[in-house]
Amino acid sequence: MRIVFIGAGRLASNLAPALQASGAEVVEVWSRTRASAETLAAQLGCRAVWGCVDDVCTTADLYLLSVTDAVLPQVVARLHSHREQALFAHTAGSMPLTLFPEAGHARGAVFYPMQTFSKGRSVDFRQVHFFVETAFEDDYRSLDALAQQLSPHVHRSTSASRRRLHLAAVFACNFVNHCCTLADDLLHDGDLDFSVMQPLLEETVAKLRQMPPAEAQTGPAVRRDDNVMGMQRAMLADRPDVQRLYTLLSESIQQYNI
Amino acid sequence: MRIVFIGAGRLASNLAPALQASGAEVVEVWSRTRASAETLAAQLGCRAVWGCVDDVCTTADLYLLSVTDAVLPQVVARLHSHREQALFAHTAGSMPLTLFPEAGHARGAVFYPMQTFSKGRSVDFRQVHFFVETAFEDDYRSLDALAQQLSPHVHRSTSASRRRLHLAAVFACNFVNHCCTLADDLLHDGDLDFSVMQPLLEETVAKLRQMPPAEAQTGPAVRRDDNVMGMQRAMLADRPDVQRLYTLLSESIQQYNI
Repeated sequence: MRIVFIGAGRLASNLAPALQASGAEVVEVWSRTRASAETLAAQLGCRAVWGCVDDVCTTADLYLLSVTDAVLPQVVARLHSHREQALFAHTAGSMPLTLFPEAGHARGAVFYPMQTFSKGRSVDFRQVHFFVETAFEDDYRSLDALAQQLSPHVHRSTSASRRRLHLAAVFACNFVNHCCTLADDLLHDGDLDFSVMQPLLEETVAKLRQMPPAEAQTGPAVRRDDNVMGMQRAMLADRPDVQRLYTLLSESIQQYNI
Repeated sequence: MRIVFIGAGRLASNLAPALQASGAEVVEVWSRTRASAETLAAQLGCRAVWGCVDDVCTTADLYLLSVTDAVLPQVVARLHSHREQALFAHTAGSMPLTLFPEAGHARGAVFYPMQTFSKGRSVDFRQVHFFVETAFEDDYRSLDALAQQLSPHVHRSTSASRRRLHLAAVFACNFVNHCCTLADDLLHDGDLDFSVMQPLLEETVAKLRQMPPAEAQTGPAVRRDDNVMGMQRAMLADRPDVQRLYTLLSESIQQYNI
């Protein structure tokens, strides 16, 4: 299976080398900008293409699209011409499978690795859950096999289920991370560094291997400690937005732990 | 150093066995209820006392108080009589050192292990950060040495700094956990289990060993993906409180990542 990567962002920069290491043949990387395309292509030892997608090779079996959601339909429509028979798969959490036929390309699929990708950090794909969705049964088998080369956690999904999963991931990843940003900010006001939080944070997450999060809850809100909560709200008086979040999150904890 | 535990809750049930295993002499456990006192005392092979704190032995060197914040001053005042010279230390994140003199006991201290303790899960104290605060220098040396037997992460703290730390811990532990409760709830509406989130969650936290949380942020809010955010808000229409949290957390992410 000859694979072309359309997009060379953080997801592609993690996924392409992992697929190549597992035996897949990555023949080309396209990016809007030359620097991104060349950086990833050099790492893979394949051809770099940039600028217009028309210049991408027409002979690959699979075009893996990891571009911004907003431009995905246009890229599909543009790429379709001369690649009518190829399999196109996008890697986005919230974009439906139907975007392919809507953009005029019948053979579409989704190949969604549910993970957070940051620069300078390489992801261990054996731990990643993949969600695969295809218009045709044969394509499902191909993409399932491709994902299985990287991870034992491969799921067949629907667009509705994946959309729900992506929403849950925003809470379990992006909002979790933002709570840490707020903690970090509070510590910086004093003489403390966020690294003191790391063991607490890791235990918070490790507990969830063993018990559901509602049961794992601790702290002033769940034990209805109005004294501590009042004091903590007062400490946030100079940050009204964070104070509001403190109040709403505490109330929400109490609603979920009656 | 002969230690008495006042309180036999989740914190004491983790801390007392760890201290004993490190060579400390735990001579007695007191709890309001007989069952709690006897359970922990049996585990430690020491005497159990319940009901009135007057019945607690008067000959210990250190009384470690891990009772509800609200009753802590009363317990100190009551325990003081016949134990005027003993060292009292509480384990609470947000209670000031001054509560001891205010309750009539001069020799007070704080021995705060910043961790989340749940039933049926035993904490590895080597990873726990301890924050020690005392009224007298000699007591500082004793409690510092006691904490060092359990963990290399022992800090000398002030009440103001510890209060700030505890507030940050509410964000990095309790609110992080609640974001997971909300994710869990969203998944349960479909056919998905929270365990699919665990690798994502662990990577989210592991990244923070390497980069500050503001820099680690990913997802629709930080990349200003109004399309996905609008869709996700619409998916939460039947949960107005969660929808409000989604909006405020997304706005807050954008404020912190300009």
